[in-house]
Amino acid sequence: MTVIAPGMEIGILGGGQLGRMLALAAARLGLKAHIYCPEDESPAAQVAHAVTVADYDDRAMLDKFADAVALVTYEFENIPLATVKRLARRAPLWPGIDALGVAQDRLREKRFLQSIGIETAPFAAVDTQADMAAAVDVIGLPAVLKTRTLGYDGKGQFMLRDGAQCDEAWLAIGQAPAILEGFVGFEREVSVIVARAISGELACYDVAENEHRNHILDLSTVPAAIEKATADQAQTIAKTVATALNYVGVLAVEMFVCPGGQLIVNEIAPRVHNSGHWTIDACLVSQFEQHIRAICGWPLGAARRHSDARMRNLIGEEAEDWATLIGDRTAALHLYGKGAARPGRKMGHVTEIFPLGALSTGR
Amino acid sequence: MTVIAPGMEIGILGGGQLGRMLALAAARLGLKAHIYCPEDESPAAQVAHAVTVADYDDRAMLDKFADAVALVTYEFENIPLATVKRLARRAPLWPGIDALGVAQDRLREKRFLQSIGIETAPFAAVDTQADMAAAVDVIGLPAVLKTRTLGYDGKGQFMLRDGAQCDEAWLAIGQAPAILEGFVGFEREVSVIVARAISGELACYDVAENEHRNHILDLSTVPAAIEKATADQAQTIAKTVATALNYVGVLAVEMFVCPGGQLIVNEIAPRVHNSGHWTIDACLVSQFEQHIRAICGWPLGAARRHSDARMRNLIGEEAEDWATLIGDRTAALHLYGKGAARPGRKMGHVTEIFPLGALSTGR
Repeated sequence: MTVIAPGMEIGILGGGQLGRMLALAAARLGLKAHIYCPEDESPAAQVAHAVTVADYDDRAMLDKFADAVALVTYEFENIPLATVKRLARRAPLWPGIDALGVAQDRLREKRFLQSIGIETAPFAAVDTQADMAAAVDVIGLPAVLKTRTLGYDGKGQFMLRDGAQCDEAWLAIGQAPAILEGFVGFEREVSVIVARAISGELACYDVAENEHRNHILDLSTVPAAIEKATADQAQTIAKTVATALNYVGVLAVEMFVCPGGQLIVNEIAPRVHNSGHWTIDACLVSQFEQHIRAICGWPLGAARRHSDARMRNLIGEEAEDWATLIGDRTAALHLYGKGAARPGRKMGHVTEIFPLGALSTGR
Repeated sequence: MTVIAPGMEIGILGGGQLGRMLALAAARLGLKAHIYCPEDESPAAQVAHAVTVADYDDRAMLDKFADAVALVTYEFENIPLATVKRLARRAPLWPGIDALGVAQDRLREKRFLQSIGIETAPFAAVDTQADMAAAVDVIGLPAVLKTRTLGYDGKGQFMLRDGAQCDEAWLAIGQAPAILEGFVGFEREVSVIVARAISGELACYDVAENEHRNHILDLSTVPAAIEKATADQAQTIAKTVATALNYVGVLAVEMFVCPGGQLIVNEIAPRVHNSGHWTIDACLVSQFEQHIRAICGWPLGAARRHSDARMRNLIGEEAEDWATLIGDRTAALHLYGKGAARPGRKMGHVTEIFPLGALSTGR
């Protein structure tokens, strides 16, 4: 196996804010970031040592990119499998094709979780419109119809409250292979960010409690207001998932906390995750640095917090308020270098930190 | 005055590790960094949005650079005054020419400090070889002969223990205009990093205690093992210097602590400083971010620590031990992306953090 050393070039597929923060973390460790994405002037390109602007199906450019870098990783899971397969023939690629395949397909993901004994919402496959009625019979209502692939931030989803909505739902999600998920009556949403090294070593951050607005993450608070036993179990679940996938890198596991503390895994993201941005300011080693360490075959850092933290996303025009936000002396402002503040677009985030215990006492 | 907004380009003169860490801090705030330096493949260029590789006396390139950026700052004080003067005609330039002029010349620096009532070592100007004997008579021995300009990390200095060394000393420092400084019997070396905004607002970090090896900073520990009254006075001195210079940006003040707690200012650096690198890992807002905030006309962040800290420089081949260093789970490794590990070259640093109070209790 290639030993990755400082000075080498890390290839990152995707030019968004996650790629940008990965590139910044790589820089801190003396590594060079090489961004591959179709967009000119992407957030990640602004801080990278090298940039390839090309489509994800441009075979010649993919080959050139793979040959230029010491290894390849990615900042988003909706990357074509053919792209990563082609790259993996010429360069080490982490977290790897298997984990990506599982995370790209909600049905495979749920079946995988079930196979390793982890609870999910009840689900049924919906391959055609004709499957809808039977799925509703099995799962009950309310339920959510979700495309198997390419969904994020609530896109590709339809909430069914009535059996008469079957056709409407099928049309709304674009008549694509789907999964019908039973509604889970949860008390809170939490997530766990876990890193797994090539050696199998794990580093697991404390559980974050997440609040969404318009299906987009709004607020992450650490620690989550849950019992210690529940928090421990959430971390165990995340570690179990990472190990079962033979995962290398940072993985996020989103869960619902039900009354009584029962945990239901909602989805897994095979990458650094929005609900882990607080780690930049509240930990010595952030999720971004952990990912870089893991894929380089280096030992992981400690996932210990030095502070409690509350991270708030800046969505769309919220970032235009930067002049006020920068004046908050208890908070760190992070902006992603995006030009146009389109509605729903993640433009930045703000992290407040507090002495350890301050947030758990106050809740 | 130009209002600097996220998305704009910050010009930085100098491509070393300080420019690199300034560029990374600018990126976090959504700003683009444009590095100007004569070297190809500089540490700062690896993480910058734009790079101009040209000499500091290349007038056409300086003008083009000044026109491309929203403002200019610098990462080192030994930049030709003619360069900054030329740039300042076309773009806002901070911390400013006056502070640079004072800091570039040890004699002006000492006289300035004296003029605002701050104690320095006894000193005498040595403009020619003929001045040496008289200077030694006034200052006494031991004493250190230092070039007035261009010295750093012990370069351009000669320690005199005997009056017979006058000629040797004069030759050793290159027969340049110099200053003879009386020897100060100090107990420890400390430094204070202070930021001053365009509004005059000040943010002052806690006092760091510094240990040198071969005239190069080896270790900075925060807090310094000094009385609270001494620490308060050290911060007052730093704030007094920044205000008297009408300074904008981050300034470092190095001091000797003498028996009884008397403070003697050794030198000032009109820039982010090696003894402030611990702020990256032990504060929400680092010295680099403070500098960017200050020169952009933004409010300063809090200079509060969330942790005690110990920063160790990696000099020359010490950085080749990165594979061991990365395994220390209590420490953050920072590498500067430099190729050749020449003796005495600053290649990176390691910061350990500890809960607040841990280091002061232990000493």
